[in-house]
Amino acid sequence: MSKAEIPRKSIYRLSIYQRCLHKLLENEVETVSSEALASAAGVKSTQLRKDLTYFGQFGTRGLGYNVKALSNVLNEVLGTTAYQPVILVGVGNLGAALLRYSGFNKEGFEISAAFDANPVRDRRLNGLKTPVYPVDRMCEFIRSKHVRMAILAVPGNAAQPVVNDMVESGVQAILNFSPTVLQVPEEVTVNSVDLALELENLSYFVR
Amino acid sequence: MSKAEIPRKSIYRLSIYQRCLHKLLENEVETVSSEALASAAGVKSTQLRKDLTYFGQFGTRGLGYNVKALSNVLNEVLGTTAYQPVILVGVGNLGAALLRYSGFNKEGFEISAAFDANPVRDRRLNGLKTPVYPVDRMCEFIRSKHVRMAILAVPGNAAQPVVNDMVESGVQAILNFSPTVLQVPEEVTVNSVDLALELENLSYFVR
Repeated sequence: MSKAEIPRKSIYRLSIYQRCLHKLLENEVETVSSEALASAAGVKSTQLRKDLTYFGQFGTRGLGYNVKALSNVLNEVLGTTAYQPVILVGVGNLGAALLRYSGFNKEGFEISAAFDANPVRDRRLNGLKTPVYPVDRMCEFIRSKHVRMAILAVPGNAAQPVVNDMVESGVQAILNFSPTVLQVPEEVTVNSVDLALELENLSYFVR
Repeated sequence: MSKAEIPRKSIYRLSIYQRCLHKLLENEVETVSSEALASAAGVKSTQLRKDLTYFGQFGTRGLGYNVKALSNVLNEVLGTTAYQPVILVGVGNLGAALLRYSGFNKEGFEISAAFDANPVRDRRLNGLKTPVYPVDRMCEFIRSKHVRMAILAVPGNAAQPVVNDMVESGVQAILNFSPTVLQVPEEVTVNSVDLALELENLSYFVR
């Protein structure tokens, strides 16, 4: 089955399963039932089993999954075994916070470089380990370092031109924090995180 | 139709439509076709029309939607006409950035107060307009100010106890940035934004 035929939601849940498996590994748990793993991930066990069938046959009836083996398979599938350089573009308040966010490192990602239209050394950037370069050096950096993943945190009206440059230089996957709908070629994947939209959406559920 | 029967995805897309309508209003556009609005929102026009049918009959065949009228209806549906106090719990790097993030204000939200286990006045909090209180004052604040919405940005292992307190005090909707699956009663809504997971998920799509 080709990558395009597997539902994006299934891929997304693999990352959640992987996080749960990591916790089990830390606690030296060797096997886990599909019910227990599904419950920890907040999904139904039928969903878990269906998601895994896209990638092979796992688990032993009555015994459950071997935690280490399943985790290794998910690493392979998700491509998290290979080092992927990631860049961040737009070092405003949100961008600077993302550079400091330890959660990325914990999951095996390191942001190699950041770019900003105005990379001044202000207090916000004090103590950052990641170098911040002028944005006009971005394309060259992407090409020379073979960067395929980028985090976008520029203002909404600046987003599309930056994305066009990224894609032309070789970026294939973008985590987008800019509050705008991006136009990209079919082979480029965008995950959008729109913080204000998430909050607005929640207000609907308040009685 | 009750709120519970309307797909959450449809509610989510209403916020996206609303943002597009706001842009049209800014540009003094009076009517918009369903095709044009759908395209700006990054969805198919059949999807847009279906989403709107949950809330009434809109638009005139051949003329499209009246931008102002549709925007007003969506405001009503989404509850964004009423002021909603929002609190933020966990003022680490990410929490502090969210307090500074101007995007929330632009969409009509203001964070009334923030809480942290250790609300020291460090450099990170310099210049913040939002007061930061010790977390043991959270429950009282929620009750006295009738807070129904909260943003959670505490470390994963601290999240569930904080959520239990929030929910007991009256919070009905949580925007969760903590990398963990939260257990909440059925009537409480959680939108989770897991930044590392989003990035990990993208690495799958890099060839």
